[in-house]
Amino acid sequence: MKAADLPTPCALVDLDVVERNTARMAERAAALGVRLRPHVKTHKCLEAARLQVRGMRGPITVSTLAEARFFADEGFDDITYAVAVAPSRLPDIRDLVKRVDRLNLLVDHPGTIDRLEDDARHHGVLYRVFLEVDCGYHRAGVDPMSSDALELANRLASSKRLELQGILTHAGHAYASRNADEIRRVAAQERDVTIGFAQRLRDAGISVSEVSVGSTPTMCLAEDLTGVTEMRPGNYVFFDAFQAAIGSCAVDDVAFSIAAEVIGQYPAQNRLLVNAGALAFSKDPGACHLDASCGYGIVQSLDGRASYPDLRLFSLSQEHGQITSDRPIAWSELPIGTKLRILPNHSCLAAACFDCYEVLRGDQVVDRWHPVRGW
Amino acid sequence: MKAADLPTPCALVDLDVVERNTARMAERAAALGVRLRPHVKTHKCLEAARLQVRGMRGPITVSTLAEARFFADEGFDDITYAVAVAPSRLPDIRDLVKRVDRLNLLVDHPGTIDRLEDDARHHGVLYRVFLEVDCGYHRAGVDPMSSDALELANRLASSKRLELQGILTHAGHAYASRNADEIRRVAAQERDVTIGFAQRLRDAGISVSEVSVGSTPTMCLAEDLTGVTEMRPGNYVFFDAFQAAIGSCAVDDVAFSIAAEVIGQYPAQNRLLVNAGALAFSKDPGACHLDASCGYGIVQSLDGRASYPDLRLFSLSQEHGQITSDRPIAWSELPIGTKLRILPNHSCLAAACFDCYEVLRGDQVVDRWHPVRGW
Repeated sequence: MKAADLPTPCALVDLDVVERNTARMAERAAALGVRLRPHVKTHKCLEAARLQVRGMRGPITVSTLAEARFFADEGFDDITYAVAVAPSRLPDIRDLVKRVDRLNLLVDHPGTIDRLEDDARHHGVLYRVFLEVDCGYHRAGVDPMSSDALELANRLASSKRLELQGILTHAGHAYASRNADEIRRVAAQERDVTIGFAQRLRDAGISVSEVSVGSTPTMCLAEDLTGVTEMRPGNYVFFDAFQAAIGSCAVDDVAFSIAAEVIGQYPAQNRLLVNAGALAFSKDPGACHLDASCGYGIVQSLDGRASYPDLRLFSLSQEHGQITSDRPIAWSELPIGTKLRILPNHSCLAAACFDCYEVLRGDQVVDRWHPVRGW
Repeated sequence: MKAADLPTPCALVDLDVVERNTARMAERAAALGVRLRPHVKTHKCLEAARLQVRGMRGPITVSTLAEARFFADEGFDDITYAVAVAPSRLPDIRDLVKRVDRLNLLVDHPGTIDRLEDDARHHGVLYRVFLEVDCGYHRAGVDPMSSDALELANRLASSKRLELQGILTHAGHAYASRNADEIRRVAAQERDVTIGFAQRLRDAGISVSEVSVGSTPTMCLAEDLTGVTEMRPGNYVFFDAFQAAIGSCAVDDVAFSIAAEVIGQYPAQNRLLVNAGALAFSKDPGACHLDASCGYGIVQSLDGRASYPDLRLFSLSQEHGQITSDRPIAWSELPIGTKLRILPNHSCLAAACFDCYEVLRGDQVVDRWHPVRGW
């Protein structure tokens, strides 16, 4: 089957581009001298993860316990669950710990440690933990300069039930960058703060084996990761319009797109309507800090060869997408039924809208991948 | 099982509230003298649809052909597919036409009519169509004052393959309202424009049996629907923080929520972290036109009895939600593991994030509903 024959809306994955993206990141990790522990949260499917780990059974990073179970079922045995533990999920976590060689958990709060220690003691298990550190994103993690951070690390180091693996951070603030230079500066900060914190702990007599960093922007552009042991980028498998806007990648590196179809023309308002809306693209607003009117994606011809830089997907309702242009739309070139390829702002959120991805080599559909859902 | 025992994140449906919401809308439709053809796109599940149609086999409105197939499989036989036809989906539409008594389609463009007529002729079927009219939302539909609109209606009226049922509109611009009075004005406009257009067609000798209107805000508050034959609200089954903000309903009428759990406390930044993010809430920005800092939902205690009006879910990443407050957060009242009930901005988009909903009577889990996904 050809891409042009697929009913719309559907999710497209360009396999050549995924292979190139995954190979490049593996090369970068090797060149920078760190282990690649790729995040699988963007695609959540086996085939893409296998390309990321190049045939190995890990290591990987997951964002949900559903992903952890799915990949454990498929033989992956070294998994970092990169969201701080929620106490209500301890039964699931316990079950996973028994099934994989390594399940690494995140902690950054004494309350979480209390719950983990109680559970470990009660059930006779040992939990492997990373202390999450805030390198400037301010979403999660201990303040690396605080006394609390040192206290927590000491507590973990001396715990009989928790085994401190090291420290971990995520430079999510890289997404506020405006260009590659700014991303490089965040990457340097991510490394400096993290290795600085590792040193502070080591100076206090705490063993820190692992220093784990990573976001797609910073890992695409980091120039030096001395002192770091592993990187955890994820979005780079697919990239998206946001990553292209801030300079993590080129538009040609975006491997994930949504095929949508023209279902309405409204010349009086210079508007087109397509049959894909918020349930296909998500409502991620994109790189608004660079272009407040960026809309919800980059519009291309279905084969990806022609771009329509003037077409702007400016509004999404549940199943409708509205496209406009600063110039008069070429109605005869975009009749009812015209299929378009639209690169979403945020491939992690858009991919999660789909039960399967149609995998392409050029214009041929060669496979169908099924992501895992839920928590 | 009790709601407090559910692992998080999960989707909660308050059955008492759904029953009240569906009963009220049925009473409103009866009092206003119109047929209720409820939209099922918000919940996409059998149980809620049955409450909407009160045991009948329709009529219903759907937003995807996947919904149409699902409800056809369950015996629903009168379905309006309320998104303009995409030519690539004609095979699915043809299949459905053979399986249900009535499948009503939307058209507003001569190109769509060409494709439908060709298909109907080629396959020997008859398509029932509504002419979609724009009552001011400017998303889809013909301009009711235009000569094109009259021409299209004439063409449909004389088609041998398309059977014109009537006209249909959706007052989506009601969502820009700031209060109940403004919604009432949009409701009056929705009715006036639509029945005015119906009259214009009738004056031109075109039979218009059905005049279909509907959005949840306008149908909650419309005072007079004289001349209208049916209403198609959908969101009212669940409502959400947005509907409460603009005055379609009270906060107590919101039947859908997300249970999330405190997984981090950051006193230095007066922030809490919960284990539900953009893949649970969607990134619908909510009623920003009323409150630019409204955040992503209304935070309550898990049992829904206590509200935390000062807690604001201000940021969502894939699996993290960040909560802040203008006042110092009461850390000891919200320790790690505290479960919260959060009413999302947009229940249609949030519900679509979940494979099932946990259905509650008070604090007891009494059922689990499974929505249909995809297109």
